[in-house]
Amino acid sequence: MSDEILRELAATLEARKHADPDSSYVARLYAKGLDAILKKVGEEAAETLLAAKNGEPEPLVRETADLWFHTLVMLAHQGLGPDAVLNELHRRFGTSGLAEKAARAAN
Amino acid sequence: MSDEILRELAATLEARKHADPDSSYVARLYAKGLDAILKKVGEEAAETLLAAKNGEPEPLVRETADLWFHTLVMLAHQGLGPDAVLNELHRRFGTSGLAEKAARAAN
Amino acid sequence: MSDEILRELAATLEARKHADPDSSYVARLYAKGLDAILKKVGEEAAETLLAAKNGEPEPLVRETADLWFHTLVMLAHQGLGPDAVLNELHRRFGTSGLAEKAARAAN
Amino acid sequence: MSDEILRELAATLEARKHADPDSSYVARLYAKGLDAILKKVGEEAAETLLAAKNGEPEPLVRETADLWFHTLVMLAHQGLGPDAVLNELHRRFGTSGLAEKAARAAN
Repeated sequence: MSDEILRELAATLEARKHADPDSSYVARLYAKGLDAILKKVGEEAAETLLAAKNGEPEPLVRETADLWFHTLVMLAHQGLGPDAVLNELHRRFGTSGLAEKAARAAN
Repeated sequence: MSDEILRELAATLEARKHADPDSSYVARLYAKGLDAILKKVGEEAAETLLAAKNGEPEPLVRETADLWFHTLVMLAHQGLGPDAVLNELHRRFGTSGLAEKAARAAN
Repeated sequence: MSDEILRELAATLEARKHADPDSSYVARLYAKGLDAILKKVGEEAAETLLAAKNGEPEPLVRETADLWFHTLVMLAHQGLGPDAVLNELHRRFGTSGLAEKAARAAN
Repeated sequence: MSDEILRELAATLEARKHADPDSSYVARLYAKGLDAILKKVGEEAAETLLAAKNGEPEPLVRETADLWFHTLVMLAHQGLGPDAVLNELHRRFGTSGLAEKAARAAN
């Protein structure tokens, strides 16, 4: 269910590219350009660190969601989507998983 | 296919919590503790910004994968997983989608 | 002249601790607390990176000034001042300078 | 005494531009280029946030010194120095100081 959310979100972000800048937060971010989007990525990364140090789960989930959301806006702005990132994680995770299994089997 | 990758990755990260710190990169990060994990989140956020400014898609995908990966390690360390973040995105995305449709319908 | 600016600025930041939160930007930041100050440090670090990548000197100087300013507010909030940081730089710089001279003499 | 340290440090950083990359940490950073320097600025900003949250003064002073140091290397790499930043702080601080005095006098 929720595992399709990144793709649905990416499809919506793609559609917003043609929207009036006054019509939504994302349309305004696109209109401001890459630096405004990256500034938000930087801000949300800092807020994620602070939330993690504070130790409360709800704010940490919200800040991590903010961080992932703004990286998706960044990817869309650059003509990319979450599948490229998920495939990269899959590629590494497969390799790493095997490598770690081998390492543990050797102990 | 790849849309299940975040959950599979989270399951692997969970299993690594009981692994020998010498057996994998992730087991070493857990052993170093929260600050070491958050330091990596901060580093990867900075590298994502630099890759986006440089404009090449492959390095941007790799750095974003590094950033998401280390936020997943952070979530696992705090007893959380990607579903909490995906649900938060779904909750907002639904609302925002409707809000934006309404805003555009009103124009 | 300007080399005394960090100390003068620190003295002003110290004085603002007793000011009405409505009287100035810094007094408001103190009232909001450490996380609000650190969020600004994170934001200004990201903006410094973006300005450096853009290559224009004036925005880079302004963003670096913003970053240094908010680290001074952070230090003041934690009961510290620029002298502690300058002394640390002096301590390292002396050592490093000698170490580097020795290294070059050996070539 | 220590108030001249930023300028002395900047003079040393300037001199290192012509040094063998193997001769010092700074010469190696210059040789790696702007992205390597900015990556360090991002890392040290994250470590400063973590040190501030941890609340111990000595690590916070060390991390802030690391952050200022790498911003000085960044400025030097871009043909700038600390005086430009200090002058900007002086310009704002003067204005802000007067503005705040006026605001308080009006209460």
